[in-house]
Amino acid sequence: MSEVAGKMAIQVGAACLEREHGGKGLLLGGVPGVRRGRVAILGGGVVGTNAAKMAIGLGAEVNLLDINLDRLGYLDDIFLGRVTTLHSDVAQIERAVSEADLVIGGVLIPGARAPKLVPEALIAEMSEGSVVVDVAVDQGGCIGTCVPTTHDHPTYVKHGVVHYCVANMPGAVSQTSTFALTNATIKYATQLADQGLSGAVEHNRALALGVNVYGGLVTHEAVARSLGKTYVPLAEALARGDGKASAARKGGAKAKAHAGA
Amino acid sequence: MSEVAGKMAIQVGAACLEREHGGKGLLLGGVPGVRRGRVAILGGGVVGTNAAKMAIGLGAEVNLLDINLDRLGYLDDIFLGRVTTLHSDVAQIERAVSEADLVIGGVLIPGARAPKLVPEALIAEMSEGSVVVDVAVDQGGCIGTCVPTTHDHPTYVKHGVVHYCVANMPGAVSQTSTFALTNATIKYATQLADQGLSGAVEHNRALALGVNVYGGLVTHEAVARSLGKTYVPLAEALARGDGKASAARKGGAKAKAHAGA
Amino acid sequence: MSEVAGKMAIQVGAACLEREHGGKGLLLGGVPGVRRGRVAILGGGVVGTNAAKMAIGLGAEVNLLDINLDRLGYLDDIFLGRVTTLHSDVAQIERAVSEADLVIGGVLIPGARAPKLVPEALIAEMSEGSVVVDVAVDQGGCIGTCVPTTHDHPTYVKHGVVHYCVANMPGAVSQTSTFALTNATIKYATQLADQGLSGAVEHNRALALGVNVYGGLVTHEAVARSLGKTYVPLAEALARGDGKASAARKGGAKAKAHAGA
Amino acid sequence: MSEVAGKMAIQVGAACLEREHGGKGLLLGGVPGVRRGRVAILGGGVVGTNAAKMAIGLGAEVNLLDINLDRLGYLDDIFLGRVTTLHSDVAQIERAVSEADLVIGGVLIPGARAPKLVPEALIAEMSEGSVVVDVAVDQGGCIGTCVPTTHDHPTYVKHGVVHYCVANMPGAVSQTSTFALTNATIKYATQLADQGLSGAVEHNRALALGVNVYGGLVTHEAVARSLGKTYVPLAEALARGDGKASAARKGGAKAKAHAGA
Amino acid sequence: MSEVAGKMAIQVGAACLEREHGGKGLLLGGVPGVRRGRVAILGGGVVGTNAAKMAIGLGAEVNLLDINLDRLGYLDDIFLGRVTTLHSDVAQIERAVSEADLVIGGVLIPGARAPKLVPEALIAEMSEGSVVVDVAVDQGGCIGTCVPTTHDHPTYVKHGVVHYCVANMPGAVSQTSTFALTNATIKYATQLADQGLSGAVEHNRALALGVNVYGGLVTHEAVARSLGKTYVPLAEALARGDGKASAARKGGAKAKAHAGA
Amino acid sequence: MSEVAGKMAIQVGAACLEREHGGKGLLLGGVPGVRRGRVAILGGGVVGTNAAKMAIGLGAEVNLLDINLDRLGYLDDIFLGRVTTLHSDVAQIERAVSEADLVIGGVLIPGARAPKLVPEALIAEMSEGSVVVDVAVDQGGCIGTCVPTTHDHPTYVKHGVVHYCVANMPGAVSQTSTFALTNATIKYATQLADQGLSGAVEHNRALALGVNVYGGLVTHEAVARSLGKTYVPLAEALARGDGKASAARKGGAKAKAHAGA
Repeated sequence: MSEVAGKMAIQVGAACLEREHGGKGLLLGGVPGVRRGRVAILGGGVVGTNAAKMAIGLGAEVNLLDINLDRLGYLDDIFLGRVTTLHSDVAQIERAVSEADLVIGGVLIPGARAPKLVPEALIAEMSEGSVVVDVAVDQGGCIGTCVPTTHDHPTYVKHGVVHYCVANMPGAVSQTSTFALTNATIKYATQLADQGLSGAVEHNRALALGVNVYGGLVTHEAVARSLGKTYVPLAEALARGDGKASAARKGGAKAKAHAGA
Repeated sequence: MSEVAGKMAIQVGAACLEREHGGKGLLLGGVPGVRRGRVAILGGGVVGTNAAKMAIGLGAEVNLLDINLDRLGYLDDIFLGRVTTLHSDVAQIERAVSEADLVIGGVLIPGARAPKLVPEALIAEMSEGSVVVDVAVDQGGCIGTCVPTTHDHPTYVKHGVVHYCVANMPGAVSQTSTFALTNATIKYATQLADQGLSGAVEHNRALALGVNVYGGLVTHEAVARSLGKTYVPLAEALARGDGKASAARKGGAKAKAHAGA
Repeated sequence: MSEVAGKMAIQVGAACLEREHGGKGLLLGGVPGVRRGRVAILGGGVVGTNAAKMAIGLGAEVNLLDINLDRLGYLDDIFLGRVTTLHSDVAQIERAVSEADLVIGGVLIPGARAPKLVPEALIAEMSEGSVVVDVAVDQGGCIGTCVPTTHDHPTYVKHGVVHYCVANMPGAVSQTSTFALTNATIKYATQLADQGLSGAVEHNRALALGVNVYGGLVTHEAVARSLGKTYVPLAEALARGDGKASAARKGGAKAKAHAGA
Repeated sequence: MSEVAGKMAIQVGAACLEREHGGKGLLLGGVPGVRRGRVAILGGGVVGTNAAKMAIGLGAEVNLLDINLDRLGYLDDIFLGRVTTLHSDVAQIERAVSEADLVIGGVLIPGARAPKLVPEALIAEMSEGSVVVDVAVDQGGCIGTCVPTTHDHPTYVKHGVVHYCVANMPGAVSQTSTFALTNATIKYATQLADQGLSGAVEHNRALALGVNVYGGLVTHEAVARSLGKTYVPLAEALARGDGKASAARKGGAKAKAHAGA
Repeated sequence: MSEVAGKMAIQVGAACLEREHGGKGLLLGGVPGVRRGRVAILGGGVVGTNAAKMAIGLGAEVNLLDINLDRLGYLDDIFLGRVTTLHSDVAQIERAVSEADLVIGGVLIPGARAPKLVPEALIAEMSEGSVVVDVAVDQGGCIGTCVPTTHDHPTYVKHGVVHYCVANMPGAVSQTSTFALTNATIKYATQLADQGLSGAVEHNRALALGVNVYGGLVTHEAVARSLGKTYVPLAEALARGDGKASAARKGGAKAKAHAGA
Repeated sequence: MSEVAGKMAIQVGAACLEREHGGKGLLLGGVPGVRRGRVAILGGGVVGTNAAKMAIGLGAEVNLLDINLDRLGYLDDIFLGRVTTLHSDVAQIERAVSEADLVIGGVLIPGARAPKLVPEALIAEMSEGSVVVDVAVDQGGCIGTCVPTTHDHPTYVKHGVVHYCVANMPGAVSQTSTFALTNATIKYATQLADQGLSGAVEHNRALALGVNVYGGLVTHEAVARSLGKTYVPLAEALARGDGKASAARKGGAKAKAHAGA
């Protein structure tokens, strides 16, 4: 879904720059004779790369920041001079953000809170009517002034800067997102249907890692700890569950499994 | 301003395809593995060309229709295979519109009503949640179901298709539009300031054609006719005005001129 | 050789669309005002990627299908919106093939029969004069109606669809193919010349895996099984062969080795 | 139709380079590690420009020659370094043709014989298995060794060079060509249907110039001269014809008009 | 020669940014992770367009300024978002120049002094080690601090800014320039050789306009005035010259003609 | 720094082709109507790839040679037909170098002398005024005639070919290079500052491998051997150093560490 989120971030950012949405009334791509907007994209992963594709496509000037030089080299290979890639450090972030009309926060660290790369003071330096979109907002956000919003009230203004921080951005393009999600998960569903849960988790380690609860037992160590429950390894839970399931089948109970891709 | 309107048409069209704005929840550019949206652009002039640039930029599939084969040849030269150019006739319009997720009406005939290229029945064939944006709506529109809307209530739904028909689309990006308009008109303003009205209209025929009223006299034949006033040629009005102006200078009155670019 | 096969597939496909070769008389790239052809490419590996490069180059609309989302992401990176990448499943294949003017079968699974992705019924739905090229035909083909043909009689028509199924497609561009093959194999030849067979297979495991027969002994397990011969591991054969070779040198016999890259 | 002819020229040229068609077995676009083919295109008009688009698309190295420097400047603008544009003179033609794997003759002078730019001696210098395609062959051809061929026997070999000289190349892609021709002529047909012949030729000078014969009278001076007939200006023929037509309507004769676009 | 001058301007500008040539030690295209240089190009004619092609090619960020909006529209068509086109006015020039690492002066008005677009004060605002290249320097230059230099001492430093102002820039690439000049003038030379001077100037008005002196008579009004000589119209001079030439042939004198293309 | 070196190689190469620098007076990108320069790049690693980006950008024809077919495939993916990739062998090197106006030596083998790919005899075959730039010259160079030069006297001519062989090419663009180097090394510096040397080398094996001398002891085996010193493993040196350092802190001595990234 990161591809969807990255592309959506630019689409909603461009819309927020319109006067009706609180922005400075700037067309991101400009027109002949009138300057284009400047976009700063924090993070060159899937989110940032797709945001960059869209921003270039709309005709904006793009600064893309990442700490991984190999990744920046790859991005330079595929964009061939159409984006400026910058090593992400305090000085570069300050320059890129303070000059930007649109800032995209696209730094996500799997399973961890996003690092706060843009402090509130830097947001305050942006020009009136600029826009910030934080894709990482449901993991705490990488921009200091961002708090989650909803599709009903997607934006708020702080320091004169429009903030778009909808936690579930891909939900706006539900058709595209549903297909994207299905494409990514169908192989797990197929395996579950073919082999049953115990067979599937045995053959597919990725799937096994996604099982948090089985037969009422918490099979994910971190989840167990955060909920104050006893952790039961999946193998053991499956073994117990098989017994319970046999029993349950008589009693009509259903084994419940929650798999998170 | 046609460049602004053309680019805005795709930007608002992409936004209207989002679920919150009534659209089918489609990301125009798709993502790897999921289909892209199809855009049909009616007219390959400045509006249509800029719409095409944006639609390509967003990653959509683009069909662009025009009756001028030389223009289509030029568009093929600059886009080098990234859009499909089609000769605009009933059959091609039907196919392109009925398959499109987004239709842009960009046919403008200077000083005349836009021709109705897309009848209501064809709009009714579009799939649920598709979007229509008519840039020509303030000249009557080239799409049968389009009536002007405002930035406050920009869209309505008809036959399940979202219609965005704001008459003054460039107003949404007022900063960009103001610069674009100024760039186009500054030379007239400079000439007026340097040479005064009579000097300027004498040296610049384009400017002279834009003077509708001078010293209370209607100097534009069509305007005079439609208002039921007497038409006075500009030269004559200027001559009379010079007398009045000399008199006025003593009496403090100011000659008023309304120039329309 | 997959690069050659992928590029050739589009070249011969474009030719088959000409009226003289049985096709519908369609120019793949169209001309300004006239629609372009639609190409569906099954498989995004080396064959499919090179086919896509050529199809884009000729100006066609391209749908490229693969089940590997990471690969589709890479293809989207390098083609930057010039192809539609689709997740390969029954629904997408049906839509892409039935709408296509040209279908390229480019799914190859090393050492296995190609999966039958396109059933005969789907081919029957294609429009009259469409074209199918199956690059995988010498491994059984991934299209249900494909059977191998030769350069002398390269095509046949089934369900009104022209089938080009030459098993050795790269043979048509023998100069290019010879260089391509030599480039890929020269390092093995050099090593054999420098170190002799036993030295070379000892230092180069890739080469060792390619030795099917040595000194009359079958050193490839699968080959031995399919021929009903006794399998002798290469190391053992080499050891025996060294003895035989010493003897043979007196008797004039030559050790024969068949290496398949 | 020149767009069709230009694109077809590369498509058939690439096919002729295949071994089965007599060529040197070269894939025009090469593959990674193996050289690409070199194409020399004579003439940078519509034929040459479309040939260049295709040749670039296939991945070839392209030299495009023309005497019009403004046109070369435009081609450099749209191709941005992807073709080499050369001023067409004897030295440049010799170098470009002698190094080429494929030569496209695309020099057409409306209403005149194409100039012989490539003498037989230069063709003889091309390497064995190279290919020549002369789009101008039905106007005498701009290549010394070219004589018209047909779709049934499209090629012949001279000096080891494969010659493809089908006079009606667009006929091979009849669907595309029919649409292209219709797009270009439909406005004349519409006008004839709406206004009748006399009305149409009165309002449309381009159409009037295309009328060779009217009511049995030869209305085109050059045609009259070459056929040894009396030339009657169209206006006079129409006037006479109106009389004849009135008479004919009684007698059942039909006025015949042959219009050549 | 403007194409050569425009391309050379960027090439020498990039070199001047190197430390050895006095520049700030900046690589115009940057590298992944390090910012690219900013180039401001004044004028979007042939010089500016070719400079822009090179600057984009080197990977720089490019601002291109011109007062002609139609020209900017065309440049936007061919560069498709890879340059920022700006309407050339005082505010835009100030912003673009003061932020630039490299400024190219490419404004030439045929037969007139170039307008001084960049005052000395603005040059003084550029950062230390920036570079200015004025292609218009032999017409007075469009940058206030520029005075002509030679290939021997091509640069000087003023206000910390390196100035490259060689009047004959194309001379550095003499091979390319000679061919470019020959391509542009050969048709005149051919006509002179075929028809003699009097025949050639009669048939070719462009050539006639270039004749300044004929048979010792000054045939160009402005030249005559500036030299204090009597102006003799070319036709008259030719007539007289024919007589003189007849006489001269006996006496061995040679008619001298100086033609300036 | 290889990105800087690769890009600089083309920039200085283009400058050397100017007449003032001894070259043949060729503009690498040509102009409409005049041929472009041919560049041969040896090696498709980071140096060669960045050189290719620049050479394409300047508008040159580019042949890029490497022995790694997978790498050539990747380069073909990102350049999409804008360079010719060739398998690097004696025949291809001979053809590419002898036809080139500019040869870039970009073959570097980490920790080893560059292989001599271009013998002196081949350089002698290049045309007068051609240019050679050897990026690998500080590792012995991959071109037979190259010996290191300095920024003060960067070039010399041999066999009529201009040689640019500055050992520290990135030094010319010191600003860009300093940032590039800092970006690549800052993480090591940070770790050293945070954890001290012993902590840093313990946690970061890459850093540990870079320590050549610690506390006066040679901790790099190859360095010790080449200097005739005793080799002391880093762990042991650190242990000893800790003792010395404790002692030194009293005596004021400072432990010295030389780290090479």
